[in-house]
Amino acid sequence: MNNRKWADKIRKIEPYVPGEQPQMKDIIKLNTNENPYPPSPRVKKVMKEFSTDKLRLYPSFKFEELKNVLCAAYGINKDELYIGNGSDEVLALCFAAFFNSDKPILMADITYSFYDVWSEFFNVKYEKIPLNDKFEINRVDYYKENGGVIIANPNAPTSIYMGLDDIEDIVKHNESSIVIVDEAYIDFGGESAVGLIKKYDNLVVVQTFSKSRSLAGIRIGYAMADKALIDVLEAVKNSFNSYTVSVFSQTAAAECAADIEYFDECRKKIMKTREWTIGELDKLGFKTLPSMTNFIFTKNNNIEAKKLFEYLRSKKIIVRYFDKKRINEYLRITIGTDEEMEKLIEAIKEYS
Amino acid sequence: MNNRKWADKIRKIEPYVPGEQPQMKDIIKLNTNENPYPPSPRVKKVMKEFSTDKLRLYPSFKFEELKNVLCAAYGINKDELYIGNGSDEVLALCFAAFFNSDKPILMADITYSFYDVWSEFFNVKYEKIPLNDKFEINRVDYYKENGGVIIANPNAPTSIYMGLDDIEDIVKHNESSIVIVDEAYIDFGGESAVGLIKKYDNLVVVQTFSKSRSLAGIRIGYAMADKALIDVLEAVKNSFNSYTVSVFSQTAAAECAADIEYFDECRKKIMKTREWTIGELDKLGFKTLPSMTNFIFTKNNNIEAKKLFEYLRSKKIIVRYFDKKRINEYLRITIGTDEEMEKLIEAIKEYS
Repeated sequence: MNNRKWADKIRKIEPYVPGEQPQMKDIIKLNTNENPYPPSPRVKKVMKEFSTDKLRLYPSFKFEELKNVLCAAYGINKDELYIGNGSDEVLALCFAAFFNSDKPILMADITYSFYDVWSEFFNVKYEKIPLNDKFEINRVDYYKENGGVIIANPNAPTSIYMGLDDIEDIVKHNESSIVIVDEAYIDFGGESAVGLIKKYDNLVVVQTFSKSRSLAGIRIGYAMADKALIDVLEAVKNSFNSYTVSVFSQTAAAECAADIEYFDECRKKIMKTREWTIGELDKLGFKTLPSMTNFIFTKNNNIEAKKLFEYLRSKKIIVRYFDKKRINEYLRITIGTDEEMEKLIEAIKEYS
Repeated sequence: MNNRKWADKIRKIEPYVPGEQPQMKDIIKLNTNENPYPPSPRVKKVMKEFSTDKLRLYPSFKFEELKNVLCAAYGINKDELYIGNGSDEVLALCFAAFFNSDKPILMADITYSFYDVWSEFFNVKYEKIPLNDKFEINRVDYYKENGGVIIANPNAPTSIYMGLDDIEDIVKHNESSIVIVDEAYIDFGGESAVGLIKKYDNLVVVQTFSKSRSLAGIRIGYAMADKALIDVLEAVKNSFNSYTVSVFSQTAAAECAADIEYFDECRKKIMKTREWTIGELDKLGFKTLPSMTNFIFTKNNNIEAKKLFEYLRSKKIIVRYFDKKRINEYLRITIGTDEEMEKLIEAIKEYS
């Protein structure tokens, strides 16, 4: 039987399309902004000692150990920190928690493409505000009445960072709305807005373990904000799924976050490789936007981006191409190891 | 600054309250229906061999290995299976995916208390249908027009199982709605409705690794249904969070599910301990509902349930008490090991 008489009761929705996760061997994977370096050796150690017997119990939702480490690192209290199943889940629940008015929320026209998907999912009205010709946010565009503000800083896929003064100004001009700053890429050269959460009760800062901390596989993201907002977020989470983060992920994340030395070493290596890559691309006639992330957004007026994307793919180098207005001349390329980026540059030279 | 000028934009919601996860040492924890036995030894082995280096990459959302094992076990195709971050997340996304009409969905008055929380969260209208005096579902109550049906089978916290004929009848009488059967406890004596998904395109069967498979800590749940419904569920998931299940959890779950012998051994032990416990409680004057789960729902007309709950707690035995109409004379007690249940019976004897 397959009559689909229930068709009118089904949710119709256009989902987010993540970058592909190809299962081919021996590829150079520069398409989803993962870290080319493994997580801290402390994660390996804690895994070896991990007792699987305790997996029979539900995880703690207090996140004692992980919160201890993160709160010390950011100088915040435990009740100012929310931990979730990847920053996508944290952001989704933030949309549900904080964007509940008849006024549209404000977001850039070119930014993380999950923002309008979450808006549709939770029936949140939104307005897209064009970035300027240099792909920068013009802060005064965000001073009008709104139902909330969501900003990726640095922005994706553009890689451009907005200074903390500009962020603070937007937060200050929106005291009747919640301003969410998505800092997935903040550790690659930018300065976090977390220092402002004690000053402004309308600011939510979201970060992730998937990029700078090399743990995309364990799914941990977190939000930092005034206790009143964290309480709302907890209540919303407990209306959706009480236990969102596995025991293992909590353990691995706590060990990882405690290894600040390794964290600093990795992100410095990536920033150095990024600058080298931009320099090499310059020589080949590419224009690369100023990057404060672990990826670059680059174009070459003499090369069709889509064709270069396909050529690189044929050479087993996977980058990301967006077939979208304003950005369809660009490629987004994750910063890999030095060796991977050398191979990328060689392949582009062959193509040119 | 703490002016909360944003208060009108915040989601107001009454969250689900899960059973407590006490951090005290040496307790006998019989309050959240966890399995007293550790997961399959194969999980321990795969963890020892697990390479943490791959955690830098996002998980696959194809669940190749885990789907292979589960599909073989249930005789279904990969496109008839959806895997998520615990069955609570799977059920929440099912509510979002399948319950989208102006008509109320139907649920029992006494059942898993997350159902009305999800309804509120996703603005789904609902109607609660009273169980009969024996706490059973009357199937004809579910034959009226509705926006969908959600049934826990066996039901919680009552532990009562409804036969497959009754389930099929409800599914058959609701071909214009989606019927979700939440089978969190099906492996403790009941027969799953999964065999019906090829016959009825309006049936969704949800199960979990948290109970019979001893893996509450890794957060894995799954839904089985006609491909058309699984496609909708995938789209809804991808409108919320693309990568919901960690690499580790996928690996551990696949190993666990492959060890059918250990699985059968554990659930048989629990069922045996359950029958022993019910027998002992009988002798002490308790009336226990017929259980097909890894917990029992029991009362004693001469003992105030809340006081016994508190006494047991003082003896470091944690059970669950619901201060709710119709069930406030009962205690819900998870089946632990033989030793734990002997201690429980001893403590109750001391109290009586």
